[in-house]
Amino acid sequence: MLYLIGLGLGDAEDITVKGLEVVRRCSRVYLEAYTSVLTVGKEALVGEEEFYGRKLILADREEVEQEADNILKDADISDVAFLVVGDPFGATTHSDLILRATKLGVPYRVIHNASIMNAVGCCGLQLYKFGETVSIVFWTDTWKPESFFDKVKKNRQNGMHTLCLLDIKVKEQSVENLIRGRKIYEPPRYMSVNQAAQQLLEIVQNQRLRGEEPAITEETLCVGLARVGAEDQKIAAGTLQQMCTVDLGEPLHSLVITGGSVHPLEMEMLSLFSLPGSGLGP
Amino acid sequence: MLYLIGLGLGDAEDITVKGLEVVRRCSRVYLEAYTSVLTVGKEALVGEEEFYGRKLILADREEVEQEADNILKDADISDVAFLVVGDPFGATTHSDLILRATKLGVPYRVIHNASIMNAVGCCGLQLYKFGETVSIVFWTDTWKPESFFDKVKKNRQNGMHTLCLLDIKVKEQSVENLIRGRKIYEPPRYMSVNQAAQQLLEIVQNQRLRGEEPAITEETLCVGLARVGAEDQKIAAGTLQQMCTVDLGEPLHSLVITGGSVHPLEMEMLSLFSLPGSGLGP
Repeated sequence: MLYLIGLGLGDAEDITVKGLEVVRRCSRVYLEAYTSVLTVGKEALVGEEEFYGRKLILADREEVEQEADNILKDADISDVAFLVVGDPFGATTHSDLILRATKLGVPYRVIHNASIMNAVGCCGLQLYKFGETVSIVFWTDTWKPESFFDKVKKNRQNGMHTLCLLDIKVKEQSVENLIRGRKIYEPPRYMSVNQAAQQLLEIVQNQRLRGEEPAITEETLCVGLARVGAEDQKIAAGTLQQMCTVDLGEPLHSLVITGGSVHPLEMEMLSLFSLPGSGLGP
Repeated sequence: MLYLIGLGLGDAEDITVKGLEVVRRCSRVYLEAYTSVLTVGKEALVGEEEFYGRKLILADREEVEQEADNILKDADISDVAFLVVGDPFGATTHSDLILRATKLGVPYRVIHNASIMNAVGCCGLQLYKFGETVSIVFWTDTWKPESFFDKVKKNRQNGMHTLCLLDIKVKEQSVENLIRGRKIYEPPRYMSVNQAAQQLLEIVQNQRLRGEEPAITEETLCVGLARVGAEDQKIAAGTLQQMCTVDLGEPLHSLVITGGSVHPLEMEMLSLFSLPGSGLGP
């Protein structure tokens, strides 16, 4: 049996009781090491091998894609666990691994957990009022994609909030190392709410220069979230302009752009996290 | 400290390791008994008091709304847990309880878990492509609300899937018992995918009678899900017409109406659950 097991968002103890029991009886345990990190970081997690009672095999994107058959080896006659930060069907669906397993006749089971896609509700905005989720990637000097902004616009037109997942760069190579075939990797980078807000404001300014009316402005109500689910989680509600400078600390960060209409109960919850001068009270 | 703790979706062992540790050291433990049920049912859960190591106090909607102060009593000097099926910020946000706690100066902490809002990804449809979530309520002879259908329409126009949460009637009184003030409650009722699909088709037919073009038809691709996260979970992909008769077994059920465009990878995943004659393969 292949078990896809969600780890939740904070630290190793956010695994479910059921998930931990399964891990402890599996013959091999892989840890998906590319779409996200627990707030405690991969290293701490590997240090948690004692907690799991199993050696963790780190599997990066390359390995999962190219060596799926290794992961699935003997999974028809023994149990193999594939651990995923958040939920196995959160931001990345891992459909490939499931389809591959099914083709090999390996049964699978999913053990769900919280992902940012539902835990974001902790800011007080109602989950059912979220529209399409977008991803904001790091811009480079030559590549500044704006296309995701249409989705934010559509969501706002429909009164829906937008969850923005912020870019993570793990195991990236510099162009030089890539060309020379050197497997030397850059330090991991995690986009902050500040960076995301600054890129968003640049898009707003570009649209104004083109004579378009942007769907959001400096004054649009946003919510920045950091380390959701962890003890030191931080939430701040304020204007997009304020998101450019708010200090939310260490990664991971997420950003919510509210829909045009915010329910009074949502407003009351947001006010628990309001930045001074945001106009939100208290 | 007030702890809001998500229980996840399947059975008692779907609580997180962290959540269980907190429960075991709390002085009082409430179980929210009105928005949802674990697949195993409330009774089995109460039977799990040994697992939790604590007596569970069932709190229905009335109690949470009217006796919030009882729940929060001494929570500033001791630890109180409020257990919620799914995630504390899933379908119902429990904002009221949090706002009340904050006003009383009681700190709170959330321990997240899976909810249907993210676990629905297990059917293979991508979470970020879900639009506004809707609720489908039991129709009566005299009350047949159709207004939620506009949201389905808007989602489909934007190429988004719609998660339909199906009605749950717990602790309902008959009109006669209500009038006579008798606290006698009807047996709980859970809407099935069949019932939801039949109501949807009635709306479609009504729209045709009024000369409107309905946003969905008998042939629209849908996914029925039952007991998500449990060992005997069942998923079926097929037409809306097929959803009227598919046998998914015991509650809880949920229904997804796909957006106009379904990605090939989503299609491949759905084909793992396809009903014969749905045209989906495999």
